[in-house]
Parts: sequence; structure tokens; C-alpha cells
Amino acid sequence: MVNVTVWNENRHEQKNPLVREIYPKGIHGVIADFLNEEGLDVRTATLDEPEHGLTDDVLSETDVLIWWGHLAHHEVADEIVQKVKERVLNGMGLIVLHSGHFSKIFKSLMGTTCDLKWREADEKERLWVVDPSHPIVEGIGEYIELEKEEMYGEHFDIPAPDQLLFMSWFEGGEVFRSGCTYQRGKGKIFYFRPGHETYPTYHHTEIQQVIKNAVHWAKPTELPKPVYGNAKPLEEIKQKN
Amino acid sequence: MVNVTVWNENRHEQKNPLVREIYPKGIHGVIADFLNEEGLDVRTATLDEPEHGLTDDVLSETDVLIWWGHLAHHEVADEIVQKVKERVLNGMGLIVLHSGHFSKIFKSLMGTTCDLKWREADEKERLWVVDPSHPIVEGIGEYIELEKEEMYGEHFDIPAPDQLLFMSWFEGGEVFRSGCTYQRGKGKIFYFRPGHETYPTYHHTEIQQVIKNAVHWAKPTELPKPVYGNAKPLEEIKQKN
Amino acid sequence: MVNVTVWNENRHEQKNPLVREIYPKGIHGVIADFLNEEGLDVRTATLDEPEHGLTDDVLSETDVLIWWGHLAHHEVADEIVQKVKERVLNGMGLIVLHSGHFSKIFKSLMGTTCDLKWREADEKERLWVVDPSHPIVEGIGEYIELEKEEMYGEHFDIPAPDQLLFMSWFEGGEVFRSGCTYQRGKGKIFYFRPGHETYPTYHHTEIQQVIKNAVHWAKPTELPKPVYGNAKPLEEIKQKN
Amino acid sequence: MVNVTVWNENRHEQKNPLVREIYPKGIHGVIADFLNEEGLDVRTATLDEPEHGLTDDVLSETDVLIWWGHLAHHEVADEIVQKVKERVLNGMGLIVLHSGHFSKIFKSLMGTTCDLKWREADEKERLWVVDPSHPIVEGIGEYIELEKEEMYGEHFDIPAPDQLLFMSWFEGGEVFRSGCTYQRGKGKIFYFRPGHETYPTYHHTEIQQVIKNAVHWAKPTELPKPVYGNAKPLEEIKQKN
Repeated sequence: MVNVTVWNENRHEQKNPLVREIYPKGIHGVIADFLNEEGLDVRTATLDEPEHGLTDDVLSETDVLIWWGHLAHHEVADEIVQKVKERVLNGMGLIVLHSGHFSKIFKSLMGTTCDLKWREADEKERLWVVDPSHPIVEGIGEYIELEKEEMYGEHFDIPAPDQLLFMSWFEGGEVFRSGCTYQRGKGKIFYFRPGHETYPTYHHTEIQQVIKNAVHWAKPTELPKPVYGNAKPLEEIKQKN
Repeated sequence: MVNVTVWNENRHEQKNPLVREIYPKGIHGVIADFLNEEGLDVRTATLDEPEHGLTDDVLSETDVLIWWGHLAHHEVADEIVQKVKERVLNGMGLIVLHSGHFSKIFKSLMGTTCDLKWREADEKERLWVVDPSHPIVEGIGEYIELEKEEMYGEHFDIPAPDQLLFMSWFEGGEVFRSGCTYQRGKGKIFYFRPGHETYPTYHHTEIQQVIKNAVHWAKPTELPKPVYGNAKPLEEIKQKN
Repeated sequence: MVNVTVWNENRHEQKNPLVREIYPKGIHGVIADFLNEEGLDVRTATLDEPEHGLTDDVLSETDVLIWWGHLAHHEVADEIVQKVKERVLNGMGLIVLHSGHFSKIFKSLMGTTCDLKWREADEKERLWVVDPSHPIVEGIGEYIELEKEEMYGEHFDIPAPDQLLFMSWFEGGEVFRSGCTYQRGKGKIFYFRPGHETYPTYHHTEIQQVIKNAVHWAKPTELPKPVYGNAKPLEEIKQKN
Repeated sequence: MVNVTVWNENRHEQKNPLVREIYPKGIHGVIADFLNEEGLDVRTATLDEPEHGLTDDVLSETDVLIWWGHLAHHEVADEIVQKVKERVLNGMGLIVLHSGHFSKIFKSLMGTTCDLKWREADEKERLWVVDPSHPIVEGIGEYIELEKEEMYGEHFDIPAPDQLLFMSWFEGGEVFRSGCTYQRGKGKIFYFRPGHETYPTYHHTEIQQVIKNAVHWAKPTELPKPVYGNAKPLEEIKQKN
């Protein structure tokens, strides 16, 4: 059984009736719902809860953490970010969605600015599969088409992904690396671009399928934590002059 | 249910009593046995069977093919190699073991000579895990130690692996990239170094664990085959002068 | 001094007046011209010369080979392809242009079908830089825009590039990995997408700049060839029971 | 002309007569000397200078920064680290040596703990070349042998390198990824393992050669900085309902 925590900033939902109409239970709510149907054990957590809902207990019980944030990245406490980072390096999967590219946790794990181009213009996005061998694209056709989305364009200031799964075409003329995997310590990370709050992207069946697949892919690998620090030799070392 | 075919050249077993003593049912036999215990659907195939045991039916029903060969790479018919290659590019997983580095199928998928250094000297090998996030190393400690193995040393003339999972230390002074993953078309490939025929390597629990893990990792991703060739535009193209 | 050989199939130029008008000296001619201006030592070779112009002497003196072919990949003799491959693995740089994706030499070095989508429709291409640290993109802006080009679309059946430098946006709705680097043996390979014969692409300043940069990047690294085969131990191996 | 700044913590040299004997002008002194002989424009900077010798002027004039630190990583001011990071992301090359793996700048750019195993036991290290195509290994044989060095062992908690150039064998039984390249923003990074302060490693000709090669490889790529933020469309976006 995979334990998933869906974290959402949950601010647009409070301020913008349009967002509330699309996501009456919040972005976290719709994601939790379709993951629940997949038979996963899902909880949600939001910014305004104590410790942002990410207590030590919650983090230690979480196999895969999903992250959506946008307006209030700076309000996420540094000590919580540090705890999440340690959990990722110790094996917890992390799925960063859309505007989460600018979250403290993602920037800290990437080591770069994670900056990009953007535009809100009701434009078409087409996400092309470029690695058809990867379990995260299981069940997806050649591309996913989204009638209206926010544009994110290159240059996307990230480290070269370990595996590039999706590349986006945008109506306005840009491209973007939209599905990227990374290994960090014992943890697996997947960045997935779509999901602007004013569009029903997380109701889209194929977008849901990718996120479901990513949860299964990102679950922790069970093995002892590597031992660091001073180490006795495993073989005899010859004395030298 | 994952369908596995274990292919073995099965020549050393006929010629060398020592090999027969270690592997009375052949190298393919011991591998099939421990995969069967894992609940997989396993068959074996060997060089001297008609079509090397790799008929169209067998290949089309195989999710993951395991390959061990050494003495008789040149006896494997080119048309069978071509069929195996097409199946890999269409999604069948391929696990290439030890001296399979010089097999026609591996060289053809890599595009390089796959040459290396080697030595048979009853020497110690220690395979260090360098990517503790990867499902193929699940359940493995910091390293696997083999009391006696054949040495394979760098430079190993392969493309840089997509993911490097194990690096070997050899008593005689060499190192080797011992666990390497590759994506080719819709297929996933894992090269795993250990397994010289005169040592009981495939009876080793952790070696078995890695191969079991690799089978699960390498199973096909289900999605439609990409469409190639001439394509109608998805968007209107403006007439130009 | 870097010695460059520009190889061109040189068939479209014989058959199609439009191509001859754009490239009166052939595609190889225009490429040789702008590389000469860069101070490189350039020669050309074409399919219909003896040994396709790629004699042992030419190959051994070539630091970087540029390859353009389309109609007649099958007419390139296998033994010449094998010689070119050996030279690449021994350090010669290889720059494969446009329809060269289907050349024997590129497919053999990649190990995949190198298939893709395509369309001739006078459509706009925009090549976005995705790795602004790489010497091959020196002097290039955020993107290169080509008013009219042939479309190549994903899925492009290649191994994941070691480094992805350009991603193309096409007017008709597709994307493509347009600038890809690979290491094979001692050699460096760069695939660069643009260059359909009926468009003046190789007269475009920035396209020329990329090819010049690529030549400098691809030149051989001078070091002894690795030694392969049976190897004496560098350290004492303990006798075991 | 490439401008190099060699940064050294320069504390061991003050405290330990043995280190002072090996490096009378400091570790930075010997590195500066052999780079000067290469015709590079070299300056040095050390921890105890104002702003650690890394003023805005120095940083803006530096093409490649070399970093050696060990005892006093925590004494490097965060604002200086931030400035160095911005320069790297904007194109300055960074070469991190040995115990610099634990420097603030390296950890910040990697996003991981950069932890490892270590041992001081006068043991032999052999650095094997695993990518003979890369300019950083030019002029190096199959391996570099160091009679006595500190051991660093896997697991090394770094992101998978973009390119792995060297793998170390240690007498005591460990292996290590000893030469690793990374792209971050417009900058290129090279981590090179050897260089414990009590051994004459930086007097070793081949170690010097690798560092010289790395300086040339890491120099900035000249192109405009990518534009980030809100972007006007390059193509017309159709109005939708």
C-alpha cells in the first residue's frame, strides 16, 4: 500500500470564485479523489494548517508527496522545507506540479533558479511523449492535448533531467520540458508541468493517469540507508614509506 | 503476470564438468528456478533448439528476455537477433548478463564494440550501489561481495548508461560499471556484470534479488506504438510567399 | 588545425533544379565554404566518388566528418559504413545533419530505428536553446527561427541524448529533439535537425554558427586508445581455497 | 584569454607543518603556478581576505573559479556563496576539488548532502578513465595512479553526473565517482576528487593536466542570458469559448 500526501497551498481556491467553481474541494481535493479511486491511501495537507499539515508523523508515514503551490511559496517555513528535503533524500517520492517549479523545496533540490517564461492566454498545449518506455507514460497516447492552459516556455532553468518524458508544444510558439525525473539521494522526483488553477486540467483523464503512474514510480525503494563518514578498510592496506 | 524467457547458450554446461556441477540444470535452469519462486511465468530457451528457442510465438509472448552467452555469440543467427531487437524496440525488456556484453543483440543495441578488460584469477569482486533510489537495488545492502569472480575492467566501451546502479571493485586493481540501464525505443535494457560460468554466482541470494528486481523493472510499458512517417498537420499552417 | 570532411549524397542537386538553384555547389559546397572561412581545413566527399570519397587516407586524416544523405542511404556500402564507425569509435567527430538520421552510420551508432514523423509543408520551425552552457550554442540567441522547413516530429526513436541542446517547435503542432550529443567510444557525435534540401537553411547565419561550434566541440580528444582484452593484475590477488 | 581564480581556505597550511612543507605557497599557490605556466591569467583568493577575496569585481572578472576547502566551510559567508552561485548560473565555470564536496557552494548547486565515506590511511588510489572522448581527460592514460591518498567511498550522495569521467579504485576496497560534470544554468561544473592536503597530489603531472583541461572545458559560453518571466506570444493565439 502506497501512502500519498497531497499538499496544496490552497489560496487561489479561497480568493477566486472561478478556481472554486472548477475545484470545489480544492486542487488537493480532486487529486486526492482520483488517487483514492486508484486504491491508494491518500491524505491532504495545506499551507494554513499547523506545520502546513506536514508534521513529523505525517512526513514519516508518507511514501509519496505531491506538491502544488503558487502565490505563497515564501510563506512555507524553512524548517518544514528542510524536513521535506531530508525525507526525499531518505526515500520519499516527490511529485512537483506546475507552479511548484518555484517552490522552496524544488529549488533547493535542483540547485538552480527554476525560472522560466510564462503567459496566461487561454492557449493550447500539446504534451508529446518522448520516452515511450517509461512507466509514467503508461496508457498515454502519442500526446496529451489541453485546450487551454497557461504557457511555460524555455529556457527552463533546471538541471538536465535524468529522464525527459514529455515535451510541450504551445500555440504561442514556445516549447517546454514538461515531464522530468530526477534522483536525489534515495528519493525519486517527478516534475509535471500542467495544472494552472483557472483551468480544469486535473479533471483531465490522461493528466490524472500520469499522476497515478508517477505515484507508483516514485514510491520508496526499500534498502538500508547508506553509511557515511569515517570507514574502516575492507581490505588490507599495505604499509608504505 | 510477467512472462520471462531465460535464454542461455548452454555450451559450457555440455563441455565442462565443473560448470555442470555448479549448474546441473544449466545456468538457465537456476535462473528459471529462482524466478519461478518469485511467482513469475518463466520458460527457457537455448542456442541449439530450433530458432534458438526464440520463435515468433515465444518472442511475442515474452515480456522480459534474459540473455547469457559466451562461446558462441557468432552462432546466433542474424535473423533471430533482428527479431529480438525489434521486440526490444517494441517494448520487451532485456536483461543482459555477464559475457552477454559481446552478444550480437547487445552490441547492436549499444552501437559500440562493448569491449573490456578481463581476467580469470579467482579474485574478489565488490559491487557498490551508486543509485540507492532505483527499484533494481531494492533489498540490497551497500554492496554485494563475491568471493571469486572473473574480472571485467574499464574502459568498458558502452554508451554512457542512462542510469548507473552498480560499480565494481576488483581485487586486482580495476573498476567496472556493473549495473547499467538503457532505454531503446519502447524497451528497457539492464546490463548486469556478474556470472562467470565456473563460479556459483547465480546461487548468490543478492545476485538473484537484483535479477528479480530487474525483471519487474524491465516489464513492458503498455501504450500505443508511436506513429512514424508522413504526418498531417495538427494545426493550420499559414501559406507563405 | 581541425581537418573536416563534408560528406554529401549529392543526388537532389543533380535531379532537382530548385535544389541546384539554392545550392549551386551542392549542400557540401556551401558547408565547406563557411567552414573554410572559419579557418578550418575542409575537404568534401560525395556518394558517387570511388569509395564514396571516404578512402582510408581520407578517413585517417579527418578529425570531424559531417554527413548529409537522404535518397540513397542504401547505396552507401556497408564496408565504408563500418570504416566510418571504427573511426568514430577511435575518436573522429561526427556531425549528422537532417535526413542523415536515417543513414546507416547513424542508425548503427544509435542502435535504434531513428524513425520519426515528417511533413513537407513550408512551415515555420523555431529551435529553442535548452542548454545555454554548451559550447555548441555559443553566439546563439534564445532560439533560431526558420521561416520554412520540413517538419520532423516526435517520437524520434533515438537513445536519450547525453545532452539535449535544442528543442524545435513546429507550426503544425509538433515538437522535436533537434540538437543531440552522444559519446560513442572515443568519438563525439552531434545530431542537428535542420536542413531540408529545398530550403536555404545552410545559408542561415545561426545555423552555420551551430555547425561551426559543433566542429570545434567534436574534434578528437588526444589520448591513448584504451587497452582491451586479457589483463594482468595490477595488485596481488590472494590465493583462495 | 581565460581568467582563473583559485580559491583556497588556506587553513591547513597555517596549522600543519607537513602541509606547509608540501605546499609552501599554499595549495592555491601550486595550482596557480601550473595554470600560469599554461598561459592562463590566474589570481588567488583565500578565506581570510575581506569578502574571502571574492569581491564583486573579482567574481565578475573570473571565467573559471577553482575551489578548495575543508576545515572551515561554515565560515564562508552565505552572501558570498550566493554571489558565487549566481555567477555560476550566469556562466562562470566552477571546479570543485576534493574536500570541497562539502562546501556550501557545491551542496547548494547539487541539492543533496554530498556526503560520502572517507579514511586517511596512506592508501593507493587509481582513477580509471571511463569516458575517453571527453576533453577533460586529454593526454591522460588509462588511469592515474596515486601512491597515497585519502579514501573517499560510495555512496557519494550527489545527483547522477551529466558525464562521469573517472572512477576511483581504492586499496581498502571502495570505489568512487571521482570526476563528474554538471550543467547548472549557463555554468559548467567539474568535481574532481583527489587532493588531500597531506599528500603531494597537486604536484602530480597528470592531476595538473586534468585541472588544466577542466579550466578550458569550463570557460563560459558566450550567448545572451535567457529571458525569464512574462512573455508575449510569438504566434497568434486563437480566441476560444
